[in-house]
Amino acid sequence: MIMIKRIGKYTLKFLDEPKITGFGSVAGKKEAEGPLGKNFDKIFYDPRAGQKTFEKAEILFQQEALTAALGRADRRAEDIDMVFAGDLLNQCISSSYGMKEFRAPYFGQYGACSTMAQSLILAAIAVSSGAARLSAAVTSSHFCTAERQYRMPLEYGGQRTTTAQWTVTGAGGCLLEPQGRAPSLAAAVIGKITDLGIKDMNNMGAAMAPAAAGTILDFLSDSGSSVRDYDLILTGDLGRVGSECLYNLLEREGVDIKGRHNDCGKMIYGENQDVHAGGSGCGCCASVLCSTILPDMISGKYKNILFVATGALMSPVSSWQGSSIPAIAHLLNIQAP
Amino acid sequence: MIMIKRIGKYTLKFLDEPKITGFGSVAGKKEAEGPLGKNFDKIFYDPRAGQKTFEKAEILFQQEALTAALGRADRRAEDIDMVFAGDLLNQCISSSYGMKEFRAPYFGQYGACSTMAQSLILAAIAVSSGAARLSAAVTSSHFCTAERQYRMPLEYGGQRTTTAQWTVTGAGGCLLEPQGRAPSLAAAVIGKITDLGIKDMNNMGAAMAPAAAGTILDFLSDSGSSVRDYDLILTGDLGRVGSECLYNLLEREGVDIKGRHNDCGKMIYGENQDVHAGGSGCGCCASVLCSTILPDMISGKYKNILFVATGALMSPVSSWQGSSIPAIAHLLNIQAP
Repeated sequence: MIMIKRIGKYTLKFLDEPKITGFGSVAGKKEAEGPLGKNFDKIFYDPRAGQKTFEKAEILFQQEALTAALGRADRRAEDIDMVFAGDLLNQCISSSYGMKEFRAPYFGQYGACSTMAQSLILAAIAVSSGAARLSAAVTSSHFCTAERQYRMPLEYGGQRTTTAQWTVTGAGGCLLEPQGRAPSLAAAVIGKITDLGIKDMNNMGAAMAPAAAGTILDFLSDSGSSVRDYDLILTGDLGRVGSECLYNLLEREGVDIKGRHNDCGKMIYGENQDVHAGGSGCGCCASVLCSTILPDMISGKYKNILFVATGALMSPVSSWQGSSIPAIAHLLNIQAP
Repeated sequence: MIMIKRIGKYTLKFLDEPKITGFGSVAGKKEAEGPLGKNFDKIFYDPRAGQKTFEKAEILFQQEALTAALGRADRRAEDIDMVFAGDLLNQCISSSYGMKEFRAPYFGQYGACSTMAQSLILAAIAVSSGAARLSAAVTSSHFCTAERQYRMPLEYGGQRTTTAQWTVTGAGGCLLEPQGRAPSLAAAVIGKITDLGIKDMNNMGAAMAPAAAGTILDFLSDSGSSVRDYDLILTGDLGRVGSECLYNLLEREGVDIKGRHNDCGKMIYGENQDVHAGGSGCGCCASVLCSTILPDMISGKYKNILFVATGALMSPVSSWQGSSIPAIAHLLNIQAP
């Protein structure tokens, strides 16, 4: 009996629908002050979280997110057969240092802001195939570690463009198991790298929107479903600018998602929080999913959603060398228990 | 019918044994001048490979390795259902820019020098589960891109310690399919992060040896097999120093691999090539596997091998902040057709 069936050209259907039996979320001060503030499992008001460096704080975020997920699923670290984790830092150190305490078989992932969806898909394949009885997906980001790695020292106080996004300080972690009364992963599309030639590192929403549009269209076509079959189409962190681009791209193909769309980068901060185009980072969609969306599926608010996380796969070096920004979007169809 | 069975605590047994139907290798000038020089599919004598930058050259290496693998398997890029690729560069740009031309569903991997084994295990799980009919694993490294990212500008001419390793300029790519007369993946162990407190970035062999020892012992214990069941136990890039550490660690547990062990980092360069402790980098074990070991399995030289790739999961930032080096080792049991 096969457990994963390919439908159409790009869609994987998980016949046994792996269950998200545990989830945990961590947020920083700014995120705690936003509209989702009361939903996070753990909030660190100090950007160093009592550690010596911002990087060590982000490592702690990953540990706390996974610990909260284990607590919710009533599981222990020793039960984890495979963990997929990733972050934005060079050599993914938030993940490697964060996960080493758990002593679980480990695979480091890099998909920029799409890493949570990437990790969830791989964790689902692992559980569906029998390779893991319990798998985990964990990602994080931190405004202060990202700023000093990608942009300028914070003390420099550089001005931000209106299309710029704000890296979320936070993390999310999920546990997947074959059984359980919990939200389940019904299907997925693994994204292809899409590059329409955008080179502006301060407008990543626009760079990522074509990847999101492509993946959503692939899924609708493969599955024979339509936008109205889903309560919510949730993109990762296109932000305000990227979301508008996505609407335009999909409208050209006769698909209107506006009434059912939201974006984690728009949800996590209030209009008054001066974050320009919205939130971003591996911790953005991970913390929104694990603090707000999964509980909303358990409570019955959402029954059937598409979670589409996007990532921009450039680096400062590739940008300095004049290359445009390749982007990717992975999709998960998550269903209520 | 399950396709992947868990044996013991850490071992995955692939019941249908995915086949490595295609493989391709790329090397630079120094590697071409070494003992395996005549085995590589493609050699670039110019470190820029005709591109404007070293990074763009490394991107090309990934493309050439996968193209050679596709050629050997008589497959086209459109046939690839899933590609797992990784490299040492920040944000894994050799992989994202390298793979985008192939337009295949993509998952970026980061496991430092263990990335080829990590990617092969995930590609095998994908094929075994039915998630992919054809999956690919590709990794690369480049002496010049690694030196300028991790160490010093080449022009600085810094002196190297005797325990230092030399980053291999090269790449390897494999294609996996459920059927075919080709070397097959019979079993795997996904490594756990191991950190014994070593902080010297110039002695990574010693930092990685405990991870390799742990993974090998886990596999022998889970599978109930012994060293003499394997023609070759091939580590990724422990080099001369790390290999001696591995022998010592295993001897304490009553396991002697010396007569059957080799290390890709030792094989790729000759004694006269002044590389100190040996080769390293994601391209080291990938290019040795795809140029030499897999052909040797097809020719009958080896029947049953263990391929154990190790990775050091620190970054310059974690080292500057005083953290020790976490290491990992993934194991694959590869059998001749």
